[in-house]
Amino acid sequence: MYRIGIDIGGTGIKVGLVDEKDQIISQNSIPTRTDIPFSEQVERMAESVKKLLYPNLPSGIALESVSSIGIGIPGIADDKSGEVIKCTNMGWYHVPLREEFRKHIDKPVLIENDANVAALAESKAGISAGTSSSVFITLGTGIGSGIILNGKIWKGFHGIGAELGHMIMELDGVPCTCGNRGCLERYCSATALIRMARERIEQHPESLIFQYAAQDPAKINAKTVFDAAKEGDPVAEKLFRRYISYLSQAIANVINFLDPEIIVLGGGVSKAGAFLLDAVRAEYPHYVIFNDMPMPSVELAVLGAEAGILGAAMLE
Amino acid sequence: MYRIGIDIGGTGIKVGLVDEKDQIISQNSIPTRTDIPFSEQVERMAESVKKLLYPNLPSGIALESVSSIGIGIPGIADDKSGEVIKCTNMGWYHVPLREEFRKHIDKPVLIENDANVAALAESKAGISAGTSSSVFITLGTGIGSGIILNGKIWKGFHGIGAELGHMIMELDGVPCTCGNRGCLERYCSATALIRMARERIEQHPESLIFQYAAQDPAKINAKTVFDAAKEGDPVAEKLFRRYISYLSQAIANVINFLDPEIIVLGGGVSKAGAFLLDAVRAEYPHYVIFNDMPMPSVELAVLGAEAGILGAAMLE
Repeated sequence: MYRIGIDIGGTGIKVGLVDEKDQIISQNSIPTRTDIPFSEQVERMAESVKKLLYPNLPSGIALESVSSIGIGIPGIADDKSGEVIKCTNMGWYHVPLREEFRKHIDKPVLIENDANVAALAESKAGISAGTSSSVFITLGTGIGSGIILNGKIWKGFHGIGAELGHMIMELDGVPCTCGNRGCLERYCSATALIRMARERIEQHPESLIFQYAAQDPAKINAKTVFDAAKEGDPVAEKLFRRYISYLSQAIANVINFLDPEIIVLGGGVSKAGAFLLDAVRAEYPHYVIFNDMPMPSVELAVLGAEAGILGAAMLE
Repeated sequence: MYRIGIDIGGTGIKVGLVDEKDQIISQNSIPTRTDIPFSEQVERMAESVKKLLYPNLPSGIALESVSSIGIGIPGIADDKSGEVIKCTNMGWYHVPLREEFRKHIDKPVLIENDANVAALAESKAGISAGTSSSVFITLGTGIGSGIILNGKIWKGFHGIGAELGHMIMELDGVPCTCGNRGCLERYCSATALIRMARERIEQHPESLIFQYAAQDPAKINAKTVFDAAKEGDPVAEKLFRRYISYLSQAIANVINFLDPEIIVLGGGVSKAGAFLLDAVRAEYPHYVIFNDMPMPSVELAVLGAEAGILGAAMLE
């Protein structure tokens, strides 16, 4: 049998057909639209799924060979009821996604938060495959996370778990969009890094960061900062050290509290690769309380953009 | 069958005989001594156990009816090897506690961190009985914690888990004994509350706190501060509000990340009872990211000083 994975993102909705070996057989993508009603959004997604299948794809697999459809959303889902509780990007609040989807394709529909979905994908077919417990952290526009315990997503008793992005790291710290202050997301997301870089650039327009961004603060991104740090630009180096320190302390918080077998970093910022990873690995053990004992390793995610489709298809 | 629970504390070692209904049948206590070698410390513990049993206690249960002996230690234990990795209070570093104990009483010996032990006791016979997941937080001289998932202690993959007291809550914050800065323990332990009170009293000797402490800063404790706050003393009220704010943010961090069914507060500070609990309950939901959804309740531990013996006896 085959499974369908749907990955709802801020700009696009990716749909893939996945085989029993966790390989994506075929996939397509449609732009995310929020200017149309919920029922139409869902209809477009269902059509997108059908396009992957026979007879729309003459060489394709028929719907009869699909056992389930998993949907990863950037928000909170209640898989019991099949309802999306909150998905700001799509403008969905308490919508019956499963029920609506099954009007078009009558298969089991599973719904899950996108970071949990990516965590599951990495733990089954990625860098954390074979581990019994892992914590996946996405460092992107925001910060998401997923906890895998004994091969299964741990989403908490009430389904609100694994929002590491809103772990308070600084009492009375930087105000967060969530209403609190000092959330990790305000220090370790790409957005936070960019914010800090823009602040520094105002005082240091000579920095390579500014040059790499074509003298345009709006063009600063995580890569600009990392590239400038690699070249030894003092402003960028200081920012990078600070970013690594914050991220390492967040990783240590996860270890000191939950101590998973492995911690996986994904998301846009993680594309910095070894430059990021080596720096984090050199620093996080200092913040681990028992750092003369074996501790979780930190690794980079390997599935990249495919994690969303794969993980959604793995939902059960 | 019966079980023995041993609770090693900073000042005393309590030993109890526990029946199958989780009732302590008989118990005794010896002072903690660190001026004698490890082997002698263990011998004293084993003698203390024997005193609970027939024929030393003529009405007592015989050793044959005891199935196991559990030991809770204020430190890190490796239950696989039966070794204590680190127990600063006792001066134990990498000592073979199980092996040494079995020289005196040849029964299965189980070793566990004391906060994990208390968490287990509450989850089986206390306030969190019947829940599938809980996090227990002891607010004492330091801060310990224990995670219970599916009825079992979650101590992490490497056995270093659930050290919530060393969760970093303030980047570049107050230096901690562990070498890091800004650990929760520095804001929410009794020690932290006393430190903050002493600082305030220097500027405000007119505070009721100082009066309740008989004008002696050394006599300030959590109770002095809470009692003064109850009476409306402005300095104490401010301290209390700050303490509740920190503790509520720590509780929200646990919820936002792990979302257990219930959070249990124990330890000396929790003796403030409803005064503490009501204030925490009014505040922590504000820091929970999805606070329009059901969330974990916060409760006070109910087993008190017996949790150590009971939980140790429950180890398996």
